[in-house]
Amino acid sequence: MRIKCTIAYDGTGFAGYQVQPNKRTVQGDIEAALARLHKGQSIKVNASGRTDAGVHAKGQVIHFDTTLNIPEDKWVVAMNAHLPDDLVILQAEMVASDFHARFDATGKEYRYFISQTKQRDPFLRHYAYHYTYPINVNLMEKAAVALVGTHDFTSFCSAKTEVEDKIRTLETIDFFEENGLLVVRFVGNGFLYNMVRILVGTLLEAGRGEREPSTFKEILDKKDRQYAGKTAPGHGLYLWEVFY
Amino acid sequence: MRIKCTIAYDGTGFAGYQVQPNKRTVQGDIEAALARLHKGQSIKVNASGRTDAGVHAKGQVIHFDTTLNIPEDKWVVAMNAHLPDDLVILQAEMVASDFHARFDATGKEYRYFISQTKQRDPFLRHYAYHYTYPINVNLMEKAAVALVGTHDFTSFCSAKTEVEDKIRTLETIDFFEENGLLVVRFVGNGFLYNMVRILVGTLLEAGRGEREPSTFKEILDKKDRQYAGKTAPGHGLYLWEVFY
Repeated sequence: MRIKCTIAYDGTGFAGYQVQPNKRTVQGDIEAALARLHKGQSIKVNASGRTDAGVHAKGQVIHFDTTLNIPEDKWVVAMNAHLPDDLVILQAEMVASDFHARFDATGKEYRYFISQTKQRDPFLRHYAYHYTYPINVNLMEKAAVALVGTHDFTSFCSAKTEVEDKIRTLETIDFFEENGLLVVRFVGNGFLYNMVRILVGTLLEAGRGEREPSTFKEILDKKDRQYAGKTAPGHGLYLWEVFY
Repeated sequence: MRIKCTIAYDGTGFAGYQVQPNKRTVQGDIEAALARLHKGQSIKVNASGRTDAGVHAKGQVIHFDTTLNIPEDKWVVAMNAHLPDDLVILQAEMVASDFHARFDATGKEYRYFISQTKQRDPFLRHYAYHYTYPINVNLMEKAAVALVGTHDFTSFCSAKTEVEDKIRTLETIDFFEENGLLVVRFVGNGFLYNMVRILVGTLLEAGRGEREPSTFKEILDKKDRQYAGKTAPGHGLYLWEVFY
């Protein structure tokens, strides 16, 4: 039986989503919890995609196969009982045996949180990027226009990316304020490695007046990472929702 | 010259405000920062009062004396440069040499945050009390009526309290919702050891229907800690503001 779960985690204490030797990871903790539920049997967990160290998730999706006879509505409680307090299963449901958290995802939403208070906020040190340069959100909105749509995002992904096809569609980039923070929301059919963080870093340079919004088309055209801006830090980033 | 500072801290990583041997404390970190600024000279810091381990502050007030010739508007930056990222100086000003952060305080505001989501929220594990029993805020409001005013709060303070005079005046207890959390706000001229946490713990028992609001006057009259409810956990509590 295949189970699909929506999960949330505070990325602060994890070396990222994916299992790595001798490091604490989200996948590692979930597989350990499942092994305990399955009396030691190892269960492989598949996610919609990885998240980096420090990156948070409000709605990551995973799936796994099980032979346990736990009713659908008891999976959440059963798994949470074996998970640490910075990682939680929000929802669990039985799905068709060919459902795949990664391959069936049709899109994702990421949000990036930016704090602009004069003094750093101790409560946000792990949860928003503290950016003290004055920024003009209008300039960021103008720059974002060139990014929305279907493009080759080679310039906006880590040079380490292994994927060959770097064409993705960004449906939305928008900006809003929430609890005194600037939030940048990205919705798209897929995201390359570090793509949101490089987009944010480059958009912030536009907002600061260091980069003309009119140059963003050029950055895309160059298909070269060095023409884009800095990678914004991981701790401002949240995988918000995965669409199927 | 005497300097008054308003400070904020995430209480998670501290064993409380007050210096204790071999433990990380807010006072210890501030005195270490001041010693660095004063080339090793030890500077004693006075606060409006202590906070316990895990308890947060959005507007704690401290004062200290200095012979350094730093202009008033540079103190914030100078001190923050030597402080860890879970502790910040928000404001600094020169005050009269007889100002005292504790003795001159005329009142304080505390806020207590309660999260009631079905599943625990990994982002709130250190910042709000996760309380899953259904509660009726109207019952808590009714119970609070008996607590507002000038009373002997012996029943609502830790039996360990050394202070003799346990009469305090609570000006306000009110309840509101913020970002999906229930917030209980307390304003008063002074608070005894654990007083807010015991008030919250007892009010929650009223909200849950385990204790009649009409019995709260009786609890006060008993002047005995055992008649009040449980002490709510420290991580939901914030010292919000100190009044002078």
